[in-house]
Amino acid sequence: MKITVLSDGGWGTALASVLCDNGHAVTLWGPFPDYLEEMRRTRRNERFLKGIELPPALVLEADLAKACAGSSILVLAAPSQFMRGMLTKLRDVPRESDVIYLNVAKGIETDTCKRMSELVAEILGSVRYAILSGPSHAEEVARRVPTAVMTASKDAEAAMTVQSVFMNQYLRVYTSDDVVGAELGGSLKNVLALAAGVLDGMGMGDNTKAALMTRGIAEMARLGEALGGRHETFSGLSGIGDLIVTCSSRHSRNRHVGEELGKGRKLEEIQREMGMVVAEGVKTADSAYQLARRTNVVTPIIDEVYTSLYQGKDPRQAVRDLMLRDPKPELPRRTA
Amino acid sequence: MKITVLSDGGWGTALASVLCDNGHAVTLWGPFPDYLEEMRRTRRNERFLKGIELPPALVLEADLAKACAGSSILVLAAPSQFMRGMLTKLRDVPRESDVIYLNVAKGIETDTCKRMSELVAEILGSVRYAILSGPSHAEEVARRVPTAVMTASKDAEAAMTVQSVFMNQYLRVYTSDDVVGAELGGSLKNVLALAAGVLDGMGMGDNTKAALMTRGIAEMARLGEALGGRHETFSGLSGIGDLIVTCSSRHSRNRHVGEELGKGRKLEEIQREMGMVVAEGVKTADSAYQLARRTNVVTPIIDEVYTSLYQGKDPRQAVRDLMLRDPKPELPRRTA
Repeated sequence: MKITVLSDGGWGTALASVLCDNGHAVTLWGPFPDYLEEMRRTRRNERFLKGIELPPALVLEADLAKACAGSSILVLAAPSQFMRGMLTKLRDVPRESDVIYLNVAKGIETDTCKRMSELVAEILGSVRYAILSGPSHAEEVARRVPTAVMTASKDAEAAMTVQSVFMNQYLRVYTSDDVVGAELGGSLKNVLALAAGVLDGMGMGDNTKAALMTRGIAEMARLGEALGGRHETFSGLSGIGDLIVTCSSRHSRNRHVGEELGKGRKLEEIQREMGMVVAEGVKTADSAYQLARRTNVVTPIIDEVYTSLYQGKDPRQAVRDLMLRDPKPELPRRTA
Repeated sequence: MKITVLSDGGWGTALASVLCDNGHAVTLWGPFPDYLEEMRRTRRNERFLKGIELPPALVLEADLAKACAGSSILVLAAPSQFMRGMLTKLRDVPRESDVIYLNVAKGIETDTCKRMSELVAEILGSVRYAILSGPSHAEEVARRVPTAVMTASKDAEAAMTVQSVFMNQYLRVYTSDDVVGAELGGSLKNVLALAAGVLDGMGMGDNTKAALMTRGIAEMARLGEALGGRHETFSGLSGIGDLIVTCSSRHSRNRHVGEELGKGRKLEEIQREMGMVVAEGVKTADSAYQLARRTNVVTPIIDEVYTSLYQGKDPRQAVRDLMLRDPKPELPRRTA
């Protein structure tokens, strides 16, 4: 099967390698022809996926039309803030009529608060759409470390196709029909990773972080359900699974920003230091806060992250305020 | 309020300190008068809770009857395999008629497969019972690191009493009515911590461990629901929260045993090395396996831990077998 991966970041490149391992004809497209040329010469993607050799069969193609011609699956792997631009280009390119658009970006468009499936529908109309999400550092997948992810689609056949092309000895793929939940799980967890980082920066313990992650996933599930997702999805790979990996990893950019905030540093200073590298959680905190207001969902952790990032509240005070809320039941009581 | 903590392990001692901080009259009882005498002299519990000073107001009492006299809450803090013996002694001691029995042990009695609430009911009859559970390293609670736990009871008033006596600036307590779920969450997570340790011992990545924890909590929830617990409890503090802390901690005995197994060592050898120190998950794996058979619940991870521990299967092969199961949906599909 011909499959095209659209944009050559770390995650796109790792997934292209998986697909090559599985014997598919894979083309990787990137927005910068010069950089593609460099990859063609070195057979590496050092900027985004250090130390990994590209599979010999992987085709690198700078022409979007050529890259997409005859493809059965287009993997949408651009960062979410570049997705609108890429989809707009894609609209002008011939594509197979039953092609599956597989989004692997984890974010919400700022200002519009749109999820990636909403962007695809707005720009490309009614097409076959699926999302791939779950706890998956690109570096580990590229090194064939055993990993489990999930793919969600309204179109059961599309989900099964995605499952069958990606699944192998080191990558286990589960299917689901909950697109909204999968998209929100992958995006909102970055906001909680910021909060987890604050705890790290303050030198808090494992107890505190586990509590934050547990109450955080409850909050994500409440908001996700209000927006049309299934509660159970947040207990799954694109919910708690992805949250665990992001909050524990030394490599997560979002957790890193939080950690620096927790040490008492200012957001502008931290972001300046990071240069072009973006922590998606910073923008998602804004979208999440707006979405919670629209739906009237109680989201104490998201709110504290938002006020810390955008209203100058000391994040260390925010942590103390979270601990001092009124006594609460963990679950609503059952009637006997 | 007078509160008595029954047995002087690390967790019991940490909780006694919390209750002293909160201004209660706290008595700590232990089964070994000599050791109590040593604690009285040093004002420390070096064997089970290193480096922590006991609160000046904490009363140490070797006589069980004196310790329990006039107490409103008896905190049951013995390891689960010693619980039957301690409850039997307790039966012969005068107690307040409306005393609350608050279990804080996390295990299932071997052979009988009984949870602690079932043991209490068998030995003491119909009494006021609650459980306290959640992600809480004793060392961190004793150092006043912010922590969140949950208390579950069929008796809403008992749960609220427990909440109000323990809750303070660094310990947040949520209430629940799901005793079965809380007990199983705290116990079954030790089996999964063994499996997580195996991954660590094999040098697997963060992706693999996050996948194991996510699929593991789904398995715990399935088994827990079949045994009468609520599904949501396993997404809470006594489920995923406790699982996160145990699987991540360098200090967990269960994770440690798994790690050594993952390096290819034999169980007997590892246990010999640990001496008196018990990893509860080793016995709970047996009970969990039996409970899954009785209820016909599919528990692939628990089964692989069981066959690795008790039927000589190489745990590294067990991990490979888990990755190679048939493709599956993550959730049952909704009907449109």
